[in-house]
Amino acid sequence: MTLETLSTSKSHGGVQGVYRHASAATGTDMTFSVFVPPQAGAGAKLPVVFYLSGLTCTHANVTEKGEYRRACAELGLIFVAPDTSPRGEGVPDDPDGAYDFGLGAGFYVDATVEPFARHYRMASYILEELPGIIEANFPADMGAQAIMGHSMGGHGALTLALANPGRYRSVSAFAPISSPINCPWGVKALGGYLGEDRAQWRRHDATALIEDGARLDALLVDQGDADPFLAEQLKPELLEKACRAAGIPLALRMQPGYDHSYYFISTFMADHLRWHAERLRFR
Amino acid sequence: MTLETLSTSKSHGGVQGVYRHASAATGTDMTFSVFVPPQAGAGAKLPVVFYLSGLTCTHANVTEKGEYRRACAELGLIFVAPDTSPRGEGVPDDPDGAYDFGLGAGFYVDATVEPFARHYRMASYILEELPGIIEANFPADMGAQAIMGHSMGGHGALTLALANPGRYRSVSAFAPISSPINCPWGVKALGGYLGEDRAQWRRHDATALIEDGARLDALLVDQGDADPFLAEQLKPELLEKACRAAGIPLALRMQPGYDHSYYFISTFMADHLRWHAERLRFR
Repeated sequence: MTLETLSTSKSHGGVQGVYRHASAATGTDMTFSVFVPPQAGAGAKLPVVFYLSGLTCTHANVTEKGEYRRACAELGLIFVAPDTSPRGEGVPDDPDGAYDFGLGAGFYVDATVEPFARHYRMASYILEELPGIIEANFPADMGAQAIMGHSMGGHGALTLALANPGRYRSVSAFAPISSPINCPWGVKALGGYLGEDRAQWRRHDATALIEDGARLDALLVDQGDADPFLAEQLKPELLEKACRAAGIPLALRMQPGYDHSYYFISTFMADHLRWHAERLRFR
Repeated sequence: MTLETLSTSKSHGGVQGVYRHASAATGTDMTFSVFVPPQAGAGAKLPVVFYLSGLTCTHANVTEKGEYRRACAELGLIFVAPDTSPRGEGVPDDPDGAYDFGLGAGFYVDATVEPFARHYRMASYILEELPGIIEANFPADMGAQAIMGHSMGGHGALTLALANPGRYRSVSAFAPISSPINCPWGVKALGGYLGEDRAQWRRHDATALIEDGARLDALLVDQGDADPFLAEQLKPELLEKACRAAGIPLALRMQPGYDHSYYFISTFMADHLRWHAERLRFR
């Protein structure tokens, strides 16, 4: 596996890079960004935070707008931002070109329905292939991984962590899709990628996973109360109810006046990274 | 004069907005962004920092990538980011469509040469019209203005401050074009906007203005030593020599390994804002 360096720039004392590789999981080229903080060097291995982005995004959105580098440089965290779907020739898209399915909308599942099953394997990519690439190419302590995400990526972070106990030391989300089986974005995506057997969908729904017995040690969620997707798509109250019933300590912070944008995410990014750093250090 | 609000989002406790208005100075619509920090309200008037962007940019580049909001929220600063040229139907561009003249490249001068003299009046826009709009629409203390900029915008910040003594309480720049009369970008732009009488150019060249007697109380400049434009276009050594001869205290910080991008700017943005805040508060 060769990793192609598309760009590197020094920033906040570390190095922000963008990389591309031929992915076995998706059968396409995949692009991702990595920030390596100034603590790297001389054999040091550093904890890794994976950040999963939302609908329509690539690695670039959080890399440009996420304001994570200062905190990662202070805390000694590697920050990895993958793409949200396979892309390229031969990769099928939403038949109507909608933004909420297909390109930019992989929903972090391995599709089982044609024509998507061939390339849309984002769960395998995030859980298996990408960590291997990070371990092989960056000074990463793969025993200290955290995962976070925004919106569709919040769904991805929560479901991948819940379905793979012990894999991530800590989990957090900004405005996650809390229960895709109960919202239009999720019903469309899970039906399109997994088919109409709804029993299969529950393994890709954070709230249902908790109801079905999956557990986390703790969970931090920030949600703007001026988010236009709050009531119809995000529904944090479903996640909150499931966490309460399961005894999962959920810090759900409703942030007054904040919307769904990176202006919201960047405001609370440093809080999340500090929360992860505390849990990545003590183990 | 009516100001149209294109968007507002809460961020870092304040409000990041984007606004448009019909400009008398340029004869076009002009778009700019303003961050108002959480200290606003209850009649408080806050200091204002104007940030002038570089070639090819609009207000959006620094608004998305500049990482200024956290520091402005801590320090109580309003941050204003204008466009870099007039735009729209009837606005002439570089005849070859080059990036370094015309649209996105106004160089913060009032053009005197046709066909540019009609719309390319960025000096009047930044010095006169935009401050009036800020004063009328935002909780701004216009007795406490600072100016900063990047590359072409660093040139703009330095020359507007030097040519208008007392107007700005403080001035700083990232990787400024230090002497446009001595670099290809500047020779093309000043020739194109002002004509071939080079005596006119000196009033739009920071180094020449200092040589000709203009003064600043102090100046902060950050420059990456891996900036690909350093030797041919930026030439901070010319500014440094002029400041030394004139007794202007210049803090020229050569930053090892940094390039010309917002990964560089965002690293040192908070330093610059603290430097401005100190000078805006004590007067």
